[in-house]
Amino acid sequence: MSDLYLEISDAGISLDLRQAGLTAEVLAAARGRVDGALDEMALLEGGGEANSTEGRQVGHYWLRDAPRAPVGLDEAIMAGHAARGELADAVARRYGSLLHVGVGGSALGAQLLVDALGDGSHEVVFADNLDPEGLARVTDGLDLATTGLVVVSKSGSTAEVEVGLAHVRAALAGAELALGPRAVAITCSGSPLAQVARDESWRGTLPLWPWVGGRTSVFSSAGLFTAQVAGADADALLAGARRMDAATREPDLTKNPAALLALAWEAAQSDRPRAMVVLPYRDRLQLLGRYLQQLVMESLGKAERRIGGPAACGLTVYGNKGTTDQHAIVQQLMDGPDDCFVTFVEVLGGPAGAALESGVTAADLLSGFAYGTRAALSAAGRRTIALTLEQLDASSLGALIALFERAVGLYASFLDINAYDQPGVEAGKSAAAAALVVQHQLIGRLEEGAEGDAAHFASLVGADPQQVFHVLRHLASSGRARSSGEGLTRRFSAP
Amino acid sequence: MSDLYLEISDAGISLDLRQAGLTAEVLAAARGRVDGALDEMALLEGGGEANSTEGRQVGHYWLRDAPRAPVGLDEAIMAGHAARGELADAVARRYGSLLHVGVGGSALGAQLLVDALGDGSHEVVFADNLDPEGLARVTDGLDLATTGLVVVSKSGSTAEVEVGLAHVRAALAGAELALGPRAVAITCSGSPLAQVARDESWRGTLPLWPWVGGRTSVFSSAGLFTAQVAGADADALLAGARRMDAATREPDLTKNPAALLALAWEAAQSDRPRAMVVLPYRDRLQLLGRYLQQLVMESLGKAERRIGGPAACGLTVYGNKGTTDQHAIVQQLMDGPDDCFVTFVEVLGGPAGAALESGVTAADLLSGFAYGTRAALSAAGRRTIALTLEQLDASSLGALIALFERAVGLYASFLDINAYDQPGVEAGKSAAAAALVVQHQLIGRLEEGAEGDAAHFASLVGADPQQVFHVLRHLASSGRARSSGEGLTRRFSAP
Repeated sequence: MSDLYLEISDAGISLDLRQAGLTAEVLAAARGRVDGALDEMALLEGGGEANSTEGRQVGHYWLRDAPRAPVGLDEAIMAGHAARGELADAVARRYGSLLHVGVGGSALGAQLLVDALGDGSHEVVFADNLDPEGLARVTDGLDLATTGLVVVSKSGSTAEVEVGLAHVRAALAGAELALGPRAVAITCSGSPLAQVARDESWRGTLPLWPWVGGRTSVFSSAGLFTAQVAGADADALLAGARRMDAATREPDLTKNPAALLALAWEAAQSDRPRAMVVLPYRDRLQLLGRYLQQLVMESLGKAERRIGGPAACGLTVYGNKGTTDQHAIVQQLMDGPDDCFVTFVEVLGGPAGAALESGVTAADLLSGFAYGTRAALSAAGRRTIALTLEQLDASSLGALIALFERAVGLYASFLDINAYDQPGVEAGKSAAAAALVVQHQLIGRLEEGAEGDAAHFASLVGADPQQVFHVLRHLASSGRARSSGEGLTRRFSAP
Repeated sequence: MSDLYLEISDAGISLDLRQAGLTAEVLAAARGRVDGALDEMALLEGGGEANSTEGRQVGHYWLRDAPRAPVGLDEAIMAGHAARGELADAVARRYGSLLHVGVGGSALGAQLLVDALGDGSHEVVFADNLDPEGLARVTDGLDLATTGLVVVSKSGSTAEVEVGLAHVRAALAGAELALGPRAVAITCSGSPLAQVARDESWRGTLPLWPWVGGRTSVFSSAGLFTAQVAGADADALLAGARRMDAATREPDLTKNPAALLALAWEAAQSDRPRAMVVLPYRDRLQLLGRYLQQLVMESLGKAERRIGGPAACGLTVYGNKGTTDQHAIVQQLMDGPDDCFVTFVEVLGGPAGAALESGVTAADLLSGFAYGTRAALSAAGRRTIALTLEQLDASSLGALIALFERAVGLYASFLDINAYDQPGVEAGKSAAAAALVVQHQLIGRLEEGAEGDAAHFASLVGADPQQVFHVLRHLASSGRARSSGEGLTRRFSAP
């Protein structure tokens, strides 16, 4: 359709869906479903129990528009923002660097905001994994004496965060520096982390709420505290998101950018699954693809419908940045299977950059390549979507994130799935816990003098031989077992 | 199959395909195809014209085993390595930081190696895009006086590299620092970049060769120069790759890791397309997924068979790192559609890290989560592959990269496609060039006083209205046009 172009002027964003494969027939047929999805969104924003499997409200939209929150929560939200604003300012004044410990939804939003909006005034580094060498690399590069610490975990008991905190604790102790005065906890009230922060008199604690999921917590202190320390305008981020929320409550679907975006995603799945490739044409937005990967895949990758019955749905997201990806994935996007649609994110304005002899500037080339790649993909039959930001600032980035949050919510309604739980993550955690139990048992048997191959140890502890092989090899590599021979029949014994 | 576990001992890598969906029947049926693919690989290594569309030899395997190269090239390769070794040492001694200008295959290999193997002795930063603000951010963070420069471009005329060099030239001039004495060019003999380096008496020039494609150039100076400056052992990287090459010439497919890997990829496409998710359980390997994304998608995403006729094949690759991705993509991998297979990359050894109260260490948790996530995915019916490195060092990383290069080559033979060209990239470049011509025309019309909407200007210059709208909006955002009104009918005039 030729008129699928929307400018959301007060949010500084335009959305071009003219090459997205939407037709007048698709839109006409979708009207009832869009109405239903918008009604559901209104119920969610009104405080309904939208996360049915977890029996929870879903309140991330309230974070940027507190008056919409249920009575009582509005004041708590405003108080949270005020406390975060004061504490972030104080930490920014006191420290030159900030170490952010968190993983998943407790890290990626802050990482995106810092990279996109940081003003360079503060070095901000992230400890977002269990890897001991990776953790060491993070702290080894810091002057700990001038580094503030923020630890983010909704539950307050995430393994990655426990390990990260233990690592930082040891590093600070090694430097004879106190942890409490430089540390801020961001967590739910009453969590183990909140308890530690209280017991150790941390500099401050900021609240998270059970009704805000990790992947949509960027507008809570989980994202905004660190972003503000890095120089981002937290109020402008909230205002941009609030403006996009308003634009996406529009009942006329042809004027509702989130409804149109969700319909474009749905249309791209009409005859075969197609992945969403995200190509932002700005280095500062390089993490956008990873951020949306988490938001979209964790929200939409679901096994069950809300009414029951199998869904097995999802929407794969990948992509790094243009033009760089022109030299990596674009070959397959052009010539490979018709299994993706490409979302271009362009930013107007900014510096012109170096000029070549022809007078063409770096910015001209960047814009030309964005257009050229899109045109070539369209000519090859690929669906494309183009989002254009008037400029890269806190307001437009807030609006951009909000647009995707709202589109995810509407699309989940179309699919009749719960966008706000993550049951599939638990199985891996349980299996990991079981592996650690097996490890404990195997250490015991080794200490008792047991010897043999993995199959032998598996029979001793009643576990799967593949699992036992994996654990024994790990124990051998860390000096807690001896290994001889090779292959699956290698023998293990006490060191 | 229960015995699909291979240890390539001298390369320090094991490959576990027991949960990859391979069966004895699949392997038996593949024998002839594997024989054919190995024959093709032997012809390629022997100097045959393996890149048929470009009429070229394919020689990246010679880089780590020069005696296999055609007569004359072997000496050139050895001389290139020697020159690179000396120049990298000299630059490492002279400068504390290194700025690497390059994009795609001329950047991503070096980025992976520096991140995985860098010893922290030198700060290494990359200018890998056209974004003027991104380029400014790179150089603003450097002490240019103590920074060496390496410019990598096979053709010597890549737009990103021309712009990057122009930017660095201006930054150095602004700091009253000379470019030539600190600059190394890595490019094909006779290229425009080689000419510039000669004219300006750069510190050195190292050769690239037309028979090494960008995405397989990591073992040329394009990857090794910068890696060596950062502290990586270039000789060990080459030796590891050479050992894996040898292991993957094995004619018995049940003992050939590259053949088995390629068959696992193929088997994963048997009933529906499945993407390759790459999950390395080490922070230092976080770029591996992006590196393989480029290697695999640019090699296998092809429209045509070599014998003619449509292929439209490809293999989508994405993934960041475990355990972090547990909190992002794993929900969909578990519960979403059965549209992926997951490649785990684990590393044995290394520091144990912080211990929790239970005595469990960070390394135990990392290993447990790797196993647990894999077990949960297997239980959910997903195919998985596990690669285990005895340790993370130059030799094993060289072998790991080589394993994927060889598997890509064999799989391309199965598909009967040319893995070594990239025709799909050209269309985007042509469209971008056309957009710049239109921009030039539009600037002319604006200067002549033309006014109107995009449709009007489109008729004036005989171009597509969507393209003209895109270009006019870019010109307005950079002060070369004035815009009034809104939407697609906004009017443009001279500023």
